[in-house]
Amino acid sequence: MNTDLILNNISRHIQLDRKETEYFKSILQVRQLKKKEFLLKPGEISRTENFINKGCLRTYTVDENGFESILMFAIEDWFTGDLNSFLNQRPATYFVEALEDTEVIQYTKEDLDRLFIEVPKFERFYRIALQKSLISLHQRISQNLSLTAEERYLNFTKKYPQLQERLSQKQIAAYLGITPIFLSMLRKKLSAKG
Amino acid sequence: MNTDLILNNISRHIQLDRKETEYFKSILQVRQLKKKEFLLKPGEISRTENFINKGCLRTYTVDENGFESILMFAIEDWFTGDLNSFLNQRPATYFVEALEDTEVIQYTKEDLDRLFIEVPKFERFYRIALQKSLISLHQRISQNLSLTAEERYLNFTKKYPQLQERLSQKQIAAYLGITPIFLSMLRKKLSAKG
Repeated sequence: MNTDLILNNISRHIQLDRKETEYFKSILQVRQLKKKEFLLKPGEISRTENFINKGCLRTYTVDENGFESILMFAIEDWFTGDLNSFLNQRPATYFVEALEDTEVIQYTKEDLDRLFIEVPKFERFYRIALQKSLISLHQRISQNLSLTAEERYLNFTKKYPQLQERLSQKQIAAYLGITPIFLSMLRKKLSAKG
Repeated sequence: MNTDLILNNISRHIQLDRKETEYFKSILQVRQLKKKEFLLKPGEISRTENFINKGCLRTYTVDENGFESILMFAIEDWFTGDLNSFLNQRPATYFVEALEDTEVIQYTKEDLDRLFIEVPKFERFYRIALQKSLISLHQRISQNLSLTAEERYLNFTKKYPQLQERLSQKQIAAYLGITPIFLSMLRKKLSAKG
């Protein structure tokens, strides 16, 4: 298991000494997912934190009419999953599915709880990482409320250029909350504009 | 300044000893806002964390056509503000306005940064509080993507019964991302249903 990416991610917010690094590495496990394989399904309890070493996952719901809504995408160097299920050890409400062959680094809720006690500076790491996520979600909610679908699509392509190439139009539409047909119309209109 | 509410809020996640409590209390300041007074406006830098001791605030944006979108409401026992502005000391993008006469307990970014060093268990407090906020925002985004306006309105009234009585229909509509006229139609339809 290559732990360079996750250790580098953590080092952006906290500095671990050699012993702390070894302790952290000792709780890590690796899991391989094939494209279209599920990391989690509604009703299951998410036992692990998930850091993406390679690949791409989407977190989504399906309503009774089969309509999919995508809460988030995640690629290399991101944490992902069903936060409520993981933190409160309750049944998940989301599907988390690999969109490519994916390698995930995982650690259990019990190991994370122990980590906070053994290496309290991880509280700081999570606090800062969570603040960033929260700011990003505030922006997304604001934009969903105030921007047109065209503006939201342009923002998405600007904010996540690397994601856009790896996703289908159907997936991007399900993230923006519009139909694939409407997204296709938008793209035609924008490409005609140049 | 009555600090019972904020100390009780904190005690739900961490236990402070007497010295830590005194230290925390020493950084607190109180600010009174009249109804319709602004705690923050776009372009200003948010210097303080804000905990509501009494009253109600809304955080919102206004687009070039004067259309308001409400990111969040906050009442007694909640923290609120423009997180990006406060944490990164950048110009705010939101208005934060008192909807009632409001009392806010505040502490500065510098004092919070020092607090994390002097009383590291506050990292834990923030980590847990942020996790809860994040889970709540995930649910809101999911519902915005997958539920009808009627379902979102019913969820809002169920989740925040105490808020609904204190807000105008216009404000609730701006939170749900629908027009006040559409909300009024929804309410008529729902009350006809019984």
